[in-house]
Amino acid sequence: MSIKSSSLRSFPTPPPSPPETAKQPQSTSLAGETQRASLLLDSEKNLLKDYPLPPQNGVKSVQPQDLKTPDSHVERDPRLFRRTGVHPLNGEPPLTDLYNEGFLTSEDLHFVRNHGHVPVCDDEQVLDWTISIEGMVRRPFTLSMRGLTEHYEQTTYPVTLVCAGNRREEQNVVRKTKGFAWGPAVLSTALWTGVPIRELLAQAKPVDGARFVCFEGADKLPNDHYGTSVKLNWCLNTDKGVMLAHRMNGQALHPDHGKPVRVIIPGQIAGRSVKWLKRIIVTKEPSDNWYHINDNRILPTMITPEASADLPDIWKDETYAIHDFNTNSVVCYPEHDEMVPLDGNPSTYKVRGYAYAGGGKRITRLEVTLDKGNSWRLASINYPEDQYRNAPDGDELYGGKMDMWWRETSFCWCFWELDMLISELADASDIMIRAMDEGLMAQPRDMYWSVMGMMNNSWYRLVIHKEDRFLRFEHPTQPSLKPGGWMERVKNAGGNITNGVKVDE
Amino acid sequence: MSIKSSSLRSFPTPPPSPPETAKQPQSTSLAGETQRASLLLDSEKNLLKDYPLPPQNGVKSVQPQDLKTPDSHVERDPRLFRRTGVHPLNGEPPLTDLYNEGFLTSEDLHFVRNHGHVPVCDDEQVLDWTISIEGMVRRPFTLSMRGLTEHYEQTTYPVTLVCAGNRREEQNVVRKTKGFAWGPAVLSTALWTGVPIRELLAQAKPVDGARFVCFEGADKLPNDHYGTSVKLNWCLNTDKGVMLAHRMNGQALHPDHGKPVRVIIPGQIAGRSVKWLKRIIVTKEPSDNWYHINDNRILPTMITPEASADLPDIWKDETYAIHDFNTNSVVCYPEHDEMVPLDGNPSTYKVRGYAYAGGGKRITRLEVTLDKGNSWRLASINYPEDQYRNAPDGDELYGGKMDMWWRETSFCWCFWELDMLISELADASDIMIRAMDEGLMAQPRDMYWSVMGMMNNSWYRLVIHKEDRFLRFEHPTQPSLKPGGWMERVKNAGGNITNGVKVDE
Repeated sequence: MSIKSSSLRSFPTPPPSPPETAKQPQSTSLAGETQRASLLLDSEKNLLKDYPLPPQNGVKSVQPQDLKTPDSHVERDPRLFRRTGVHPLNGEPPLTDLYNEGFLTSEDLHFVRNHGHVPVCDDEQVLDWTISIEGMVRRPFTLSMRGLTEHYEQTTYPVTLVCAGNRREEQNVVRKTKGFAWGPAVLSTALWTGVPIRELLAQAKPVDGARFVCFEGADKLPNDHYGTSVKLNWCLNTDKGVMLAHRMNGQALHPDHGKPVRVIIPGQIAGRSVKWLKRIIVTKEPSDNWYHINDNRILPTMITPEASADLPDIWKDETYAIHDFNTNSVVCYPEHDEMVPLDGNPSTYKVRGYAYAGGGKRITRLEVTLDKGNSWRLASINYPEDQYRNAPDGDELYGGKMDMWWRETSFCWCFWELDMLISELADASDIMIRAMDEGLMAQPRDMYWSVMGMMNNSWYRLVIHKEDRFLRFEHPTQPSLKPGGWMERVKNAGGNITNGVKVDE
Repeated sequence: MSIKSSSLRSFPTPPPSPPETAKQPQSTSLAGETQRASLLLDSEKNLLKDYPLPPQNGVKSVQPQDLKTPDSHVERDPRLFRRTGVHPLNGEPPLTDLYNEGFLTSEDLHFVRNHGHVPVCDDEQVLDWTISIEGMVRRPFTLSMRGLTEHYEQTTYPVTLVCAGNRREEQNVVRKTKGFAWGPAVLSTALWTGVPIRELLAQAKPVDGARFVCFEGADKLPNDHYGTSVKLNWCLNTDKGVMLAHRMNGQALHPDHGKPVRVIIPGQIAGRSVKWLKRIIVTKEPSDNWYHINDNRILPTMITPEASADLPDIWKDETYAIHDFNTNSVVCYPEHDEMVPLDGNPSTYKVRGYAYAGGGKRITRLEVTLDKGNSWRLASINYPEDQYRNAPDGDELYGGKMDMWWRETSFCWCFWELDMLISELADASDIMIRAMDEGLMAQPRDMYWSVMGMMNNSWYRLVIHKEDRFLRFEHPTQPSLKPGGWMERVKNAGGNITNGVKVDE
């Protein structure tokens, strides 16, 4: 059943983009070793890579609060903030810890968005796990994990997953949405290994009129299995990089991240990257799954929570569904409540953080203002993702081709930094930032509030307080149980936070 | 030399997207008739189409002011405002006339951006005009217009071209840029007929490492021929729709629009759609043409005209080059200085205009505020482009396949409208609008000023004046020689127009 990539080539001769892919696929085992003889252990080989490799995981254990839940089989890192009570797990890492891990996020700190119980798939069941490919295809078939990992060419590359609700807590302070509070750390980057979905679709042969690909997971929820859809032509476009992934940072998937197999859709909100994947259904229309209709949408801003209950046609209007995530940026240092001495040495402070753009786009600039947008300074930007593009021809990682040199799209976050004089910070009342992407769209000053509370990307603002001989910095919101952040404080003091920006302190 | 499209198919069997393209190409003559026998005249056949067809052109003549210029061979419509004096022609149609023509713009009113003289290509020279395809390709070749029109499958679809400088005049009022004043009507939509560039590149066979496609026109300018580049993978992507066009609205190209052949790149600024095309050069690096480096860039906002003169590395940084145009929207009615009676019948006014998004993206909403962004109303949106997607299988127009049903991308502007109570307008001091696109980016309130003055897409604002028993509406700028528009007026009165929005009247 081996599928040669050569049957998918678009050109009579090898094109430069995407590259020649006619080499015989390498079989891989689930242990991550290629069957090609090697004198080096994986870990030794990886030391020779000149691109980032993942941070080590710590030892995780089942957390006490999970013992009485259906997730009592899942070992987790206690540092994740639980944003919806004990169960299901919706876990956000502390912003500073996430940033400090660097470009790649460990499995431990990778954010988790679960709608219900984590499906059980024991190690000995993994190879027999099946995925069906059905619907508007000429040759529907069922594929086992054994088949997926042994009979297809594997690929590995980094992808930043971003939850549609990243920074929702700011929206909830302005006006409560129907979504739970997420801070600015609901994104994570990992090296994913798997099979391009294009290869499976080519084998199934979609028929005329097919336009969407629906995904369904094994997680049984009150309103159906979790499911959603994306456009078929996204799945067929090699530049978009949609894959079925069975490894994360070189290891078999953790239960919270979809064990044994999930979809990875770079540049689109993580809510489309269905975990515990069971069905792929090619259709004429977008998914009619309850979660596709009732989640991951930006209804027009004037629709209130009350009004939204009576607008079924608005909810079903695919115009308002989120696919690509939008451009966003956050300050990570200074941290919340960080104290910076006014007379310290050096006399500058390196303000820094992350930024990202969706749909394969790239951030082209990050600008910082100390005077509420009247003037701006240019930060420097670093795209660690580009280091993987320089991997030598034929390079492999975790049993997958490190296959990025030919791809023009960008799938990951970037980092920015700017040295600022502490004396200038002392003269300012706040720091605000905005990014611009390749589509020449700049982040807006004003928050776009919507009923589900998603895609909040207004200028991120840190308030600067002068306290004795220190500057203290205050982020908009805080994920801990105790209150924190300037938004709640200003609101409680009767200040104006309409649109999240017009602060009247 | 006939190139069968079937050699380009990505799938062993016909994929749903892009569609089966294995039919034999139809030869076409330059007169726009297919060689297939038909009992109907073209004009009669077109009457049966249920998608928009172009407005009729008027009778044009050489304008008196062109007689003493090298363009004395070019017949033009006197309604175009000449924004750079008499010569070269940089012509903008009146906004209202443009809007009133509807979805498709006539050749007469289509904006014109010329850097120098219009190259002379007489009718009898057209078929012998040649284009070279060279650089990093295995099989360079030269193609005549005869070959292009007779030996390749032709396609027809509508594309909105947008100048990067659309709405620059507003930026120039805030602070003079290095670019000349353009108003909000530097965009036009036509039905273009030609050959997908992908077919020509497939024939030439780009070699490994090739990443860009440079275009060069016949217009000899002080700093070289006009030239620029786009990414190779854009040109290879059928969803992006890059074509070499030799017909506009069914007619051979007008000299101002590239006679006899030009590039058409949907979703990218019109400055990349090189006219009077002579050379296609496949390269590893972006174009080093003077106009590619020194035009169509958005330098970071803090770079002043003075500073920019000493920053050659910034100019050459491809990060700041514009490719996709950004999302924008304009109010067309009320017109500038339109008077609306306060006690008229009906009691509502239909506010309306256009919007567009770049890169193949679509506008997903257009919102209107009467209170400076504190609350918004949803306008209705109409995408006439969608009517072409419903063309019957095998449909042809102007000798090209009307080939759009499978394409998910959008290449054209859309229209929006909203009925508003005149009493509400009377209570407001202004109307402002913003659009959001599929990438979930909303137009920003604040202008992004840059040294070249490009991609201005801050909220478009009409000031409302109460005069006796009328409302009078004032646009930001006016293209006529007499001054007009609230921006200049407010600036002259000492008001604050920083960022184009913080109006302090």
